[in-house]
Amino acid sequence: MASQQFDPPSGTRDFLAGDLRVREHVFAAIRDVFQRYGFEPLQTPAFERLETLTGRYGDEGDKLIFKILRRGEHEASGDADLALRYDMTVPLARVVAAYGSQLPMPYKRFVMGPVWRADRPGRGRFREFAQCDLDVVGSTSPLADGEVVCAIADALAAVGLGDYTILINSRRALTGLLRAYQVPAEVGGQVLITLDKLDKLKPDEVVGELVDERSLDPATAEALVGDLTAADAVDRLRAALADDEDGRAGLAEVDRVIESAAPVAGAERLVFTPRLVRGLGYYTGIIFEVVAEGMPGSIAGGGRYDHLIESLGGPDIPAVGGSLGVERIIGLLSAEAVTAPRLDVAITVMSDEDAAAAMDFAARLRHAGRSAEVYLGSSRKLGRQLRWAAERRARYALIYGQQERDAGLVTVRDMDSGDQQQVAPDQLAVVIGA
Amino acid sequence: MASQQFDPPSGTRDFLAGDLRVREHVFAAIRDVFQRYGFEPLQTPAFERLETLTGRYGDEGDKLIFKILRRGEHEASGDADLALRYDMTVPLARVVAAYGSQLPMPYKRFVMGPVWRADRPGRGRFREFAQCDLDVVGSTSPLADGEVVCAIADALAAVGLGDYTILINSRRALTGLLRAYQVPAEVGGQVLITLDKLDKLKPDEVVGELVDERSLDPATAEALVGDLTAADAVDRLRAALADDEDGRAGLAEVDRVIESAAPVAGAERLVFTPRLVRGLGYYTGIIFEVVAEGMPGSIAGGGRYDHLIESLGGPDIPAVGGSLGVERIIGLLSAEAVTAPRLDVAITVMSDEDAAAAMDFAARLRHAGRSAEVYLGSSRKLGRQLRWAAERRARYALIYGQQERDAGLVTVRDMDSGDQQQVAPDQLAVVIGA
Repeated sequence: MASQQFDPPSGTRDFLAGDLRVREHVFAAIRDVFQRYGFEPLQTPAFERLETLTGRYGDEGDKLIFKILRRGEHEASGDADLALRYDMTVPLARVVAAYGSQLPMPYKRFVMGPVWRADRPGRGRFREFAQCDLDVVGSTSPLADGEVVCAIADALAAVGLGDYTILINSRRALTGLLRAYQVPAEVGGQVLITLDKLDKLKPDEVVGELVDERSLDPATAEALVGDLTAADAVDRLRAALADDEDGRAGLAEVDRVIESAAPVAGAERLVFTPRLVRGLGYYTGIIFEVVAEGMPGSIAGGGRYDHLIESLGGPDIPAVGGSLGVERIIGLLSAEAVTAPRLDVAITVMSDEDAAAAMDFAARLRHAGRSAEVYLGSSRKLGRQLRWAAERRARYALIYGQQERDAGLVTVRDMDSGDQQQVAPDQLAVVIGA
Repeated sequence: MASQQFDPPSGTRDFLAGDLRVREHVFAAIRDVFQRYGFEPLQTPAFERLETLTGRYGDEGDKLIFKILRRGEHEASGDADLALRYDMTVPLARVVAAYGSQLPMPYKRFVMGPVWRADRPGRGRFREFAQCDLDVVGSTSPLADGEVVCAIADALAAVGLGDYTILINSRRALTGLLRAYQVPAEVGGQVLITLDKLDKLKPDEVVGELVDERSLDPATAEALVGDLTAADAVDRLRAALADDEDGRAGLAEVDRVIESAAPVAGAERLVFTPRLVRGLGYYTGIIFEVVAEGMPGSIAGGGRYDHLIESLGGPDIPAVGGSLGVERIIGLLSAEAVTAPRLDVAITVMSDEDAAAAMDFAARLRHAGRSAEVYLGSSRKLGRQLRWAAERRARYALIYGQQERDAGLVTVRDMDSGDQQQVAPDQLAVVIGA
């Protein structure tokens, strides 16, 4: 049999204990932060009705939805009626629609769990991967924007990522930008899509695309790109936006979120970034992206999306949220970053007659909160069993042979120093501290 | 729009914060116990290759597998190539085959997570539900059997279920039973399937089925059922089994597991139950089932299955394991059984100008480990915001108006007593203890 038949399906992973330790460490640290902010956990099913998901992610997204065949008599039809969740936002919209009055308002929720996309698997790209979102649904307050940014900053600190910058802009500032530079309204959206490439392409290339593909006149394209990429871009853009109503409103949004997030993230990490577009799609207010030194792309992002829940089939309710790139964050942490807890006690078994005593010692230690394992192999040789204790990285080993049985004592061996002492069984949990 | 369009798919559930608290409490308590026993966590993908799952669960089981359509150019074919996992045992067999030498041996692993079955949804029966399994792979030691039983007993105690009985039998004792009562070998398996109904049917009905459907002669059927249901069934069966080699070996297995589990479960909870069959299928040694007073069916069960992993496509390796009925256990706990942690501090916002101060107070408290929420509504009235603080079940509310601003202090209101005091911002985390 080919050995790959035992691999997990393409684009998915098995997580053994070491991997899970790192993942759980990251999830627990983030969960702890979000709960301190008063965000509540939510868990929705792995699959949704197919019609809940289709048409929500554009043509490209729709192709990546994993569809589940109808069962029973309908199976032969080859039709699907369910689909694995593609993200956490559509389920959120459904939950807000379904439980509206049962939810606290504003509804502050976070979610951490797998989503599934039938993407082409590749380095760092999976078909099953964890998403971590937090959202405030039902508040238009700029403080809600600030809370989302702060919670993400605190979560990054909690997982040990301190060297990051939060790029901040506003959808309204972008509207003002287009007007301030006299970009024709009909090409505005397309121009922003091109400007979004300023972090990847050279300024000249962006100017070229604006002129060639977006039909912008060269002088406007040069001015726009020149100002956005200048050393004093922020000053130039603040001046330009100040002349436009949306521009001023957008600047005020940016300044308010920077002010409210500064106590947590530090003002120096919060950077007004006029060229930040963030795909544009559904955002209506503040947008932000977190970048880290030496890493391409972003490790977190989000923004305000006041009409998205309605467009996904939910009620018309304002919302602001963010997403942490947990898989990328986990990828940054080495397995050694989260040390495995040591086994407290490895209990040897010197003869079949002593098995019950071994189980009794194990029970005493476990009830006192220590971790303990009993030797489950067939050897009755001490040397073999002490090697097992060392492989299990035990702090102590217990030895109970004829001599100990006669004395009513048990030998406790310190696996690091090799020191041994004999103690009464009811003193085990005292001698072997937590 | 019909409101049920926002329900989760049939047979699945959305878990809001209160439900998740109970579930997480149960999972965490069990996880803690299993880790004290040295079991390692494992997590496999939600789906497996279709061929990994089909043919493993019998015809009835196969019908309940959720199949996932092929994507891309093959989608139109209506063929499936993946399927949602149906249990945790087939993925375990695949993992043991895939990672053999990387795993500690014996490999003691536990797993908690959802599985999916296209069953007809009903009261207490779901299409997405959690399973919780623990297994020892690679040990033939009877101590491994004992460890599994002990870990399950300790886990039940940890979730607050103390009033249970562990029924114990052995596959070899059943082989001996059939021989001791001279049941023809060719109907042995069928006879056991009928005897398995002794916990649901009356003895007469079981005798009737043995005679009518299993072709057992009436005298044998009467003797078998009479002895198994007698007040002194255990004595009668011990005597009968003592004359048969498999019977004696089975009794020894039962006695050893009772002896080794007694320090944890208590000898009075461990009951040799000669009529226990447990579906028979793949078990090769000890079998057990945990029943609780007043509850139909079982809340846990398991046994030794030395050739199952091989039959599922893995290596031929001995194993013993058990499964906790976590959904049933969760169903026994009311939401009130796990009290929600209270919000430590609700922070009011008296004017837009004070918003940054509110965020600063929140940051100070959160960094000191307290949970804190900032008011995100539009009202600037104190009464409205104190009602919000009460709704959020906050221990304290902070008030920061003009008077406080002038004094450089903040008012801390005890939400239970109504007492108020003014403190300096840097004293907040001192005044508001953990």
